[in-house]
Amino acid sequence: MTGPAPEWSGTSSDPNDEQFGHVVDRATVDAAGEYAAVLVGEPYDGAVIGRPGARDGPTAIRDALAGVKTHHFDAGPVARIGDVGDVDLARGSVRDVQSSLRAETARLYDAGAVPAFLGGDNSLTYPNVAPLLDRDDAGRVGVVSFDAHLDCREVRAGPTSGTPYRQLHDAGLDTLCVVGARHFETTTAYADYLDARGGSVLTAESVGAGVDATLERVRTALSDVDTVYVSVDVDVLDATAAPGVSAPTPGGLTSRELFALVRGVAVDDRVRGFEVVECAPSLDPTPTGRTAATAARAVAHFLGGAGA
Amino acid sequence: MTGPAPEWSGTSSDPNDEQFGHVVDRATVDAAGEYAAVLVGEPYDGAVIGRPGARDGPTAIRDALAGVKTHHFDAGPVARIGDVGDVDLARGSVRDVQSSLRAETARLYDAGAVPAFLGGDNSLTYPNVAPLLDRDDAGRVGVVSFDAHLDCREVRAGPTSGTPYRQLHDAGLDTLCVVGARHFETTTAYADYLDARGGSVLTAESVGAGVDATLERVRTALSDVDTVYVSVDVDVLDATAAPGVSAPTPGGLTSRELFALVRGVAVDDRVRGFEVVECAPSLDPTPTGRTAATAARAVAHFLGGAGA
Amino acid sequence: MTGPAPEWSGTSSDPNDEQFGHVVDRATVDAAGEYAAVLVGEPYDGAVIGRPGARDGPTAIRDALAGVKTHHFDAGPVARIGDVGDVDLARGSVRDVQSSLRAETARLYDAGAVPAFLGGDNSLTYPNVAPLLDRDDAGRVGVVSFDAHLDCREVRAGPTSGTPYRQLHDAGLDTLCVVGARHFETTTAYADYLDARGGSVLTAESVGAGVDATLERVRTALSDVDTVYVSVDVDVLDATAAPGVSAPTPGGLTSRELFALVRGVAVDDRVRGFEVVECAPSLDPTPTGRTAATAARAVAHFLGGAGA
Amino acid sequence: MTGPAPEWSGTSSDPNDEQFGHVVDRATVDAAGEYAAVLVGEPYDGAVIGRPGARDGPTAIRDALAGVKTHHFDAGPVARIGDVGDVDLARGSVRDVQSSLRAETARLYDAGAVPAFLGGDNSLTYPNVAPLLDRDDAGRVGVVSFDAHLDCREVRAGPTSGTPYRQLHDAGLDTLCVVGARHFETTTAYADYLDARGGSVLTAESVGAGVDATLERVRTALSDVDTVYVSVDVDVLDATAAPGVSAPTPGGLTSRELFALVRGVAVDDRVRGFEVVECAPSLDPTPTGRTAATAARAVAHFLGGAGA
Amino acid sequence: MTGPAPEWSGTSSDPNDEQFGHVVDRATVDAAGEYAAVLVGEPYDGAVIGRPGARDGPTAIRDALAGVKTHHFDAGPVARIGDVGDVDLARGSVRDVQSSLRAETARLYDAGAVPAFLGGDNSLTYPNVAPLLDRDDAGRVGVVSFDAHLDCREVRAGPTSGTPYRQLHDAGLDTLCVVGARHFETTTAYADYLDARGGSVLTAESVGAGVDATLERVRTALSDVDTVYVSVDVDVLDATAAPGVSAPTPGGLTSRELFALVRGVAVDDRVRGFEVVECAPSLDPTPTGRTAATAARAVAHFLGGAGA
Amino acid sequence: MTGPAPEWSGTSSDPNDEQFGHVVDRATVDAAGEYAAVLVGEPYDGAVIGRPGARDGPTAIRDALAGVKTHHFDAGPVARIGDVGDVDLARGSVRDVQSSLRAETARLYDAGAVPAFLGGDNSLTYPNVAPLLDRDDAGRVGVVSFDAHLDCREVRAGPTSGTPYRQLHDAGLDTLCVVGARHFETTTAYADYLDARGGSVLTAESVGAGVDATLERVRTALSDVDTVYVSVDVDVLDATAAPGVSAPTPGGLTSRELFALVRGVAVDDRVRGFEVVECAPSLDPTPTGRTAATAARAVAHFLGGAGA
Ligand SMILES: [Mn+2]
Ligand SMILES: [Mn+2]
Ligand SMILES: [Mn+2]
Ligand SMILES: [Mn+2]
Ligand SMILES: [Mn+2]
Ligand SMILES: [Mn+2]
Ligand SMILES: [Mn+2]
Ligand SMILES: [Mn+2]
Ligand SMILES: [Mn+2]
Ligand SMILES: [Mn+2]
Ligand SMILES: [Mn+2]
Ligand SMILES: [Mn+2]
Repeated sequence: MTGPAPEWSGTSSDPNDEQFGHVVDRATVDAAGEYAAVLVGEPYDGAVIGRPGARDGPTAIRDALAGVKTHHFDAGPVARIGDVGDVDLARGSVRDVQSSLRAETARLYDAGAVPAFLGGDNSLTYPNVAPLLDRDDAGRVGVVSFDAHLDCREVRAGPTSGTPYRQLHDAGLDTLCVVGARHFETTTAYADYLDARGGSVLTAESVGAGVDATLERVRTALSDVDTVYVSVDVDVLDATAAPGVSAPTPGGLTSRELFALVRGVAVDDRVRGFEVVECAPSLDPTPTGRTAATAARAVAHFLGGAGA
Repeated sequence: MTGPAPEWSGTSSDPNDEQFGHVVDRATVDAAGEYAAVLVGEPYDGAVIGRPGARDGPTAIRDALAGVKTHHFDAGPVARIGDVGDVDLARGSVRDVQSSLRAETARLYDAGAVPAFLGGDNSLTYPNVAPLLDRDDAGRVGVVSFDAHLDCREVRAGPTSGTPYRQLHDAGLDTLCVVGARHFETTTAYADYLDARGGSVLTAESVGAGVDATLERVRTALSDVDTVYVSVDVDVLDATAAPGVSAPTPGGLTSRELFALVRGVAVDDRVRGFEVVECAPSLDPTPTGRTAATAARAVAHFLGGAGA
Repeated sequence: MTGPAPEWSGTSSDPNDEQFGHVVDRATVDAAGEYAAVLVGEPYDGAVIGRPGARDGPTAIRDALAGVKTHHFDAGPVARIGDVGDVDLARGSVRDVQSSLRAETARLYDAGAVPAFLGGDNSLTYPNVAPLLDRDDAGRVGVVSFDAHLDCREVRAGPTSGTPYRQLHDAGLDTLCVVGARHFETTTAYADYLDARGGSVLTAESVGAGVDATLERVRTALSDVDTVYVSVDVDVLDATAAPGVSAPTPGGLTSRELFALVRGVAVDDRVRGFEVVECAPSLDPTPTGRTAATAARAVAHFLGGAGA
Repeated sequence: MTGPAPEWSGTSSDPNDEQFGHVVDRATVDAAGEYAAVLVGEPYDGAVIGRPGARDGPTAIRDALAGVKTHHFDAGPVARIGDVGDVDLARGSVRDVQSSLRAETARLYDAGAVPAFLGGDNSLTYPNVAPLLDRDDAGRVGVVSFDAHLDCREVRAGPTSGTPYRQLHDAGLDTLCVVGARHFETTTAYADYLDARGGSVLTAESVGAGVDATLERVRTALSDVDTVYVSVDVDVLDATAAPGVSAPTPGGLTSRELFALVRGVAVDDRVRGFEVVECAPSLDPTPTGRTAATAARAVAHFLGGAGA
Repeated sequence: MTGPAPEWSGTSSDPNDEQFGHVVDRATVDAAGEYAAVLVGEPYDGAVIGRPGARDGPTAIRDALAGVKTHHFDAGPVARIGDVGDVDLARGSVRDVQSSLRAETARLYDAGAVPAFLGGDNSLTYPNVAPLLDRDDAGRVGVVSFDAHLDCREVRAGPTSGTPYRQLHDAGLDTLCVVGARHFETTTAYADYLDARGGSVLTAESVGAGVDATLERVRTALSDVDTVYVSVDVDVLDATAAPGVSAPTPGGLTSRELFALVRGVAVDDRVRGFEVVECAPSLDPTPTGRTAATAARAVAHFLGGAGA
Repeated sequence: MTGPAPEWSGTSSDPNDEQFGHVVDRATVDAAGEYAAVLVGEPYDGAVIGRPGARDGPTAIRDALAGVKTHHFDAGPVARIGDVGDVDLARGSVRDVQSSLRAETARLYDAGAVPAFLGGDNSLTYPNVAPLLDRDDAGRVGVVSFDAHLDCREVRAGPTSGTPYRQLHDAGLDTLCVVGARHFETTTAYADYLDARGGSVLTAESVGAGVDATLERVRTALSDVDTVYVSVDVDVLDATAAPGVSAPTPGGLTSRELFALVRGVAVDDRVRGFEVVECAPSLDPTPTGRTAATAARAVAHFLGGAGA
């Protein structure tokens, strides 16, 4: 990691208000396993297809999260959380960055941590998940990817934010379940590829049938894996809810759906890691930073679920 | 009241178009009981926690409402409505303002009116509801509060927009049913408090299960009260739908849900009062004034239901 | 038509990416019947009630559509599509424009084409649909109109964007089914008129009950017609989803609902024509052109369904 | 005129505050000569090249002007002003509209009025100025046109917002002095045309040398005319100052410069008319309506100067 | 003061970058005289006429200032600065607040400090300046007020953001020089009042003649005072430069002019205090916080000048 | 170069309108010397300090430039221009990119071309200028850099957008004249460095004294060089004029000033190259793309001057 995490503090003057700013500790990688989950910043967008900006995600999400309160009505307050700071970023090609990061993320899993990565672009998914594929204790590994896209592109001139699952499949990923994919935002070649790999697509359209039905379908898709990793590409949200992404797209999930779905998968005790990627504050024209505020609450719903 | 209400007029050139501008009369407090409901402006935001601006709600909501048409597809046109103008605001502390307002609102209830208050911040709920608690004809009183928050804070250095229900409980409020509260926007201390007071929380997440199911749960929560008051804090809406509030928050209700819910509770003949609070036009960056346009239609749905 | 359509091309550098830019051909009216559907631009907003701007819809929608990919998860890639360019616009009164356009659109139906008109304002619906009413092969004709409004105003000082269905009823339209109409955005006079004409209104509120239930109700409303025309006034969308319209209105459809509904009606083999109207890019304050991006995807869902 | 002007009123609660809302009277055309100047609304944008919206200029400018105060530090308060309401707009072609308007504006000049037209698009300049060219009491007529453009296009398929000065030259206009024209926003053909017609161009760049120097150059350009008409196309302002125009253009005048220049020419007692055109509120993304607020103050500076 | 100032730190990773975050120390009132100037937050907008929001000015200005670098090309780096934190705000009427604040600000002057107040609304000017009027060591006192307005309203129902200079005149202020006042933003009554009090108005229009000429006129206006206080109401800036104010107004100063003027007056060794008021971040629709960024740089120019 | 330039075409329907879209030819590097200047796209922002986005500059600037007209009032129409397309970008570190680009740009100078580079971030200045330092026919080389910053940082962990002039000085650059630098946006260490290198700083504040005076000072600064290169970092513009940059900064140049200054230096026949960098369309929240529109006109003013 690049150094100590920022000092967390709350923003409320009411002593009854417990906020994430009050329950996040600066933590070391070695002690990361003592927390239900640890935050890990990954301020990198060097592989993004389209408009960059996700490098500023970690700072903006942490700032927003510090003021979020800790109570979930069904589960009560969250447990204490660690923050190990930002990862070290290698200079060089995307492949160099992925390779270097993979070594860092492996240390987190070695320490028994459940990392909650704050991206950064979607190319980070490869180093974030890959170490799990090598672990004896992980068994069969599946990813639930909340994303408008499949991100299964062929690796041509190097990895990009569109290639992580192709890379992970090649590295041994057992199952991919994409939730929130849009019609007309991918092409048949990639839909067929994912199908051939045994993946599942739960379209954004289908999520409209309800959170419970969606979670049931996710569980089915993951029924034969031992370890689950949860990825949120913020563009899974509707363009209205998350304007600060590389390519805001209509027809997406509401933030309310995403929050419930993230928590719904987080409570699965097979979950070993989480990430939120593609939050690009500089692309968000709202004066209140709607996208980062929403990403932070998605993180909160994960942390609340992971600690349950 | 400070003086006569503004002159209302419509904006359409089509003689078939009946708009609220055509059916709202200037009214006096004494004659307020002759209408199905009367509008009452409360341009005050001196107690707001966070960003101010709700003082400009009454003007913006009236301006928007004047052009809204009067037809509900299930119920036909609204009845005539009165507008008694804006309340007199005492100078001084929040407690002074609340105290002075309470006397004015009591006169409205004395006149047999069903007030539809246009706020102003959420601290107004205390003077808006308190007179009902003293009335022999009111029996047991419950509030349905559409709000992202519980607003049950302890009164420390005086009342705020976060304390009205604590104050009302202390003044004898029998039941509070909060609809649209968000996970991670309150703390366990307040959730526990409301629970101890016998209140109900229908989270925004739960509203996603449908309007009818939600209304059924509201009815259950209110089953043993004689008088109902309906409060809409505009921040119950999703941040996309209502950017012009003190703290826009994701994970909220759609405007469509809010409209149907407001009308659903308005048709209950136990309803004695209504308010829409926390609409702050100056905080809304949209050039068309999305928040006030939406607040005005929430008022329309109440008025349509109240007159049914 | 005014001349050749623009040259279409894709925007992606990935050879696996098939976009509408790759599958739309410049076409002539004479050859228009060879395609599952043909695009027809109608850059006219001379009849708009309220804020103009829809004249720029065709260019903005085509630009956005060129980059949209061609895959629908349930149906695979779209078939090739034609683009016959923009219609010739007569100078003069709205009635002159309608009259001249009607002759042009008749030629398209004569050629056996399924036109997908890109408006332009809602007054265009009259010339877009009227030729079908005269055709022996059309039988009874019904329109499914996705619109916040009924657009059944009396024709007083000439047609407007509010009068097309009054004009079409007078010209022999058999059935009108309005989907997405809002409470309090029309007046009782027009609701009664449509009722008297045997029309159906599926309110935006009712669409919240689900896409499948809505499609079922649409099918019932159209059960006795032989030919179906599908119209999308972009203001059927919620104000958050489509800020670039003459009068953005809350309480509307999500883009996800609209997409599913459009495709749901497009697969009906009685469908002979389609339009998207009232997309006004200059009224959209979002830097990424949210309204046109959404309108383009509504077109994609029609084209995907029409070719199925 | 279409009917009575709106009722004007002020917005301030301070009795010392005199606003235009307090000093504008509803006036008739017959009595228009009794005022230093009369406001005349022209809500027409049927001839605009580019993005429409200027039809909403009169309402927005009047609304903004009502709250503007009446004091100029060098000249004191303005005199009373009349408002004759909006002109009647013929239906039909741009030429029909121009022709019909010309008859109305002639009546104003006949009444001895100094009209201050609130447009509307720049095609209105032709009917606004043309009657002066026919008057014996007008002598030689010159126009000072504050505009980013020359608006001397050839009339091809009818007049447009780009043709008024070509039309006026053909009708006998003696002199045109364009102030604020931008490099690279016109072509050599039109610059040569204006040169051949003896016109003057004071580029926006040259205005940077100072208001006094610019006014001196304007006076020289107008030295041999007897009657002056002053036109302000709001796009003369820099794109930052007036985003609500058909084509916002950088390199323009500051509002401060425009105000001083307008007043500087208004005090010339040869001035017989004034207009502000191309203010399109619906194209302005700022929540406070920056463009109309600025246009209203340009009008104030004219009225202050005209009454001096 | 309410407690310790925030901890200041820089934002740059380049060790050569000296930012205000590196040179501002937390300071006590007692030690405030040891610095060239001390920052004092005044998060109060209870007296604002128009739209509130200036209460959030201190936080936003400090946040922006922390990243501003310390080098002025003509004068080199700034000296170390103190920050004494935010003032205690009395509850109660505006007069109560003013009265209580006056006692706090007096302590700063007693300590020999040169306060740089971060407002807050313009009513704060009264307590910020009044203690100087009572000091034997101050002699004759003059204020340079950069403001679009005169702020000399009569005190009717209590002080407001429009009354500070009326109050100060009544308390013995000797001279007021208003720089940047706009034509048509005040009324003759107040212009006459200020004239009668011997005040000077340098209009925004006149500032266009140049910074040096303006500074010369300011010096003349202040020629016979012994002590100078400098006030910046951010609305002196053009509406484009400072959209986050109660009433953004065109025709104003550029930020470049304001910076040079502020420094130009700051270097006068008679200067004993400074303030920036009416910066309201919540009213600023720009995603980068343009108004606070600009206010922070105005503060920097004062601090750079005051330490020279 | 990566391949052929885009096909240029105009956007106007008036045959008298000559636009850049009509006068730009696709050109090869070999034929680049036949034009007064050639456009060269550099879509790279991998070295940016702060918010990325300048990679999208070339496309946005070309799109905007195509519709810009060709007439300068003082000089008439521009000469024909070439467009050689976008440069090939090496993968790898910033140093790799710079090194690879330098070889490409050298070929342009070898061909006798006057390149007008469309960036891209400011790190590109090094490869854009460096080949001139090696040429026997260039003599002493000076750069005029329009920039809010000095960009003379030490090269620590590789070059960045803040280091180009440090790199160029080390490679033999003779003179640097920075125009538009802001006070308080750099630190004393860098100001001293530039001073020691004999550079000149003409602050943004000083540009307020006038374009002619500024050009005179530029000429003096460059008096002893034989070859001039002109660089425009768009952040030299005021934050209001160019919101779409990495760090919008107040106190900057107006677009009008920049245009006149760019042309003023472009007419110097020692000029051998030009660039506009740091235009980041994705960071621009204005719906009309104000920053790219302005950057395109800066290019036009260079091209107009270079061909004179
Ligand atoms: Mn994605
Ligand atoms: Mn992705
Ligand atoms: Mn709330
Ligand atoms: Mn509340
Ligand atoms: Mn509609
Ligand atoms: Mn319609
Ligand atoms: Mn123009
Ligand atoms: Mn014009
Ligand atoms: Mn002011
Ligand atoms: Mn003030
Ligand atoms: Mn720079
Ligand atoms: Mn730079």
